[in-house]
Amino acid sequence: MKTVLILSGGMDSATLAHEPGLGPLLCLSFDYGQRHVRELTAAAAIAAAVGAEHRILRLDGFAAACPGSSLTDPAVAVPHGHYAAETMKATVVSSRNAILLATAFGVAVAHGAEQVATAVHAGDHTIYPDCREPFLVALEEALNLGVWSDRRIAIRAPYLALSKIDIARRGGELGVPFELTWTCYDPQGAVHCGQCGACEERKEAFRDAGLVDPTEYAA
Amino acid sequence: MKTVLILSGGMDSATLAHEPGLGPLLCLSFDYGQRHVRELTAAAAIAAAVGAEHRILRLDGFAAACPGSSLTDPAVAVPHGHYAAETMKATVVSSRNAILLATAFGVAVAHGAEQVATAVHAGDHTIYPDCREPFLVALEEALNLGVWSDRRIAIRAPYLALSKIDIARRGGELGVPFELTWTCYDPQGAVHCGQCGACEERKEAFRDAGLVDPTEYAA
Repeated sequence: MKTVLILSGGMDSATLAHEPGLGPLLCLSFDYGQRHVRELTAAAAIAAAVGAEHRILRLDGFAAACPGSSLTDPAVAVPHGHYAAETMKATVVSSRNAILLATAFGVAVAHGAEQVATAVHAGDHTIYPDCREPFLVALEEALNLGVWSDRRIAIRAPYLALSKIDIARRGGELGVPFELTWTCYDPQGAVHCGQCGACEERKEAFRDAGLVDPTEYAA
Repeated sequence: MKTVLILSGGMDSATLAHEPGLGPLLCLSFDYGQRHVRELTAAAAIAAAVGAEHRILRLDGFAAACPGSSLTDPAVAVPHGHYAAETMKATVVSSRNAILLATAFGVAVAHGAEQVATAVHAGDHTIYPDCREPFLVALEEALNLGVWSDRRIAIRAPYLALSKIDIARRGGELGVPFELTWTCYDPQGAVHCGQCGACEERKEAFRDAGLVDPTEYAA
């Protein structure tokens, strides 16, 4: 068993990288022009912490070709407030997970990996349609139709039914070094802003899981 | 109607760019580390010829992460001989069309385009599973599940049942400036090699369509 893991550098994929049973990991991170490119430094640290191979792929020109998302378009502000709110739709990058998973799938074929793993979770479902099960099932089907492979390659999303609080709790059990992770969509210099939806959710996850939050927030 | 067109710079996508009825085109070309990156110059010239917007996106690090294809791995030679031969499987870049189409789909959402168009054709089917109808149908389904959009975005592949000869003939009717296009997988300096499967197929298409081949071949 070998797994290509999409590693953003956040709490969820960091926890997934620590799960036993995935076999040797090839971790992939993506620079798609996100303003929180700081997460890639976190991803590298997490891959190193689990002793996994790590590659960063850059989608150069993508952000400029896709205006309108607050994550990639400097002209659109990152919304503040709770993640579940409608305003957070401004953080959608259309087809992002399709692009990331298709790329990871190609890497999996080239490396003879049996699966691609992603840490999407139940808390993502409201805002991001590309974090939902019907999308993942359909994409797995399509991607397998598109390659030569001796066997079917799976898209594994083991946290699909978990909340971020569940994942934080699981990370606590696994001893994930959460101080290495990066969540914030709207970095204030070297620290988390503490006000964007992603930061709100991070704070909530640590608190409700009963863990010490190791994060420095600007606010 | 607005269309995001995947424009490689070859004969097929150049012909598609000249088809009436697609509406304003946003042409996308991709640098995925292919050794025939010369095709991107051709793509730019073709987009200019039809007066369309053109963007080149780079997938930096992808080729290095996916060893084994003769198109992107300097350690693997481009096979010579006819395209239908089993040896041409060395030219497969796993999940390439999934990555390109998913990216184009995201761009289509951002720009309010109704469709993504690709010039895959019947001659591609033997070697490239990601040029076949079942893959395209399944991917269209998956990509639509993964985005917020007021309406379904279509993946159009109008040449799916055509041979390359049919396309050359159609290009002749449409007055496509084929001298601007680039086909060769194994460029010899500034000219087409004349020996790889792609060149073989190009020569055959011009000959069997009864067109003058404007190409300079090294052999």
